[in-house]
Amino acid sequence: MKAVCLLSGGLDSTVCLAYARTHGYDACALSFDYGQRHRAELKSAAIVAEVYGAEHRVVKIDLRAFGHSALTDDIAVPKGRDEAQMGAEIPVTYVPARNTIFLSFALAWAEVVGAGDIFIGVNALDYSGYPDCRLEYIRAFEEMANLATKAAVEGRVIRIRTPLITLSKAGIVRLGAEMGVPFGLTHSCYDPSPEGKACGACDACVLRAKGFREAGVEDR
Amino acid sequence: MKAVCLLSGGLDSTVCLAYARTHGYDACALSFDYGQRHRAELKSAAIVAEVYGAEHRVVKIDLRAFGHSALTDDIAVPKGRDEAQMGAEIPVTYVPARNTIFLSFALAWAEVVGAGDIFIGVNALDYSGYPDCRLEYIRAFEEMANLATKAAVEGRVIRIRTPLITLSKAGIVRLGAEMGVPFGLTHSCYDPSPEGKACGACDACVLRAKGFREAGVEDR
Repeated sequence: MKAVCLLSGGLDSTVCLAYARTHGYDACALSFDYGQRHRAELKSAAIVAEVYGAEHRVVKIDLRAFGHSALTDDIAVPKGRDEAQMGAEIPVTYVPARNTIFLSFALAWAEVVGAGDIFIGVNALDYSGYPDCRLEYIRAFEEMANLATKAAVEGRVIRIRTPLITLSKAGIVRLGAEMGVPFGLTHSCYDPSPEGKACGACDACVLRAKGFREAGVEDR
Repeated sequence: MKAVCLLSGGLDSTVCLAYARTHGYDACALSFDYGQRHRAELKSAAIVAEVYGAEHRVVKIDLRAFGHSALTDDIAVPKGRDEAQMGAEIPVTYVPARNTIFLSFALAWAEVVGAGDIFIGVNALDYSGYPDCRLEYIRAFEEMANLATKAAVEGRVIRIRTPLITLSKAGIVRLGAEMGVPFGLTHSCYDPSPEGKACGACDACVLRAKGFREAGVEDR
């Protein structure tokens, strides 16, 4: 039973991949080199994929061609914000149509390898800020996907699986801990040092630290 | 009034771009370098975009990473088939999830430039073979798109426009002729010579020749 898992190399997508493996899927892990500042995550993705015995592909795409995000442009990554500030508006780290593009490539690969399931680690915290992390969006993508491909026309149903969608960051950490996820191999920071060290102050670092604290789990 | 137009440099997408321009849109033309054998079309796309005063971007994406199409692999492009043979099954020139990937990038660019309309030149002939050329699919993509982006959340409606969808190839040629489309600049062949000369025998060449013949228009 094959599944394509979107894998950034961060905490959420790694827990999502672990979930797919734990539930018996033969996983194909898909990462994107999209000109992100935080390319350290691609190294994490490769290591995590290997740990989970997943076939790993990195697709190079040029999201910089359209610009307009702190994750790909020279816009400053916001630091030291609390959750109220994070939730107040769609963050500058939003990349236009990113999940739609990522899921589209996942759909292509799913068709080629004969996978019926696509796993994506979107969750409750993300969707306060990113419109393409909401369940309503995921369901609409799934409906479209089932009209888009030769596989669908031939009767193979595509399911977009979001095991983390209702979980808080602490919930994700707890789920990961239960499955023995090697957290130390994952990378979350939006603005790491050239050596890949987390900044500790961007939204991703703040949420990660809080998640581990609340879950009572040590982040090695 | 801005619109993003998918432009392969072929007959259909060129007529589609001409349609958008004729209807008063300020066009942003989007092409893909996806490892297609028929890269001559990218040269045509650049010329056509210039003729129509459209801003032109070529996004490089690696569809070969997933393989499985005569347009990107070493599978032979079928030659000398009639329309009954073409319609009998999904052709080997089908690229998994191609229109979904293309429209996703168009959605990203539309969001960045503030375009509400995305034009794609899918048509009746295509959708006998390609599932992602059917109106049902297009409507599902549109619905998903309106849940996917910051623009949509803020109330800007995205429309996927398919002015050619009910037209035969002859109908497209007639529509293009009415708008004065410079057909000679467009490229349709799936398997051109290294100099970019059309083979005259692949499905695309056969349909194009038939379309011009039925429309009573000369293909220069």
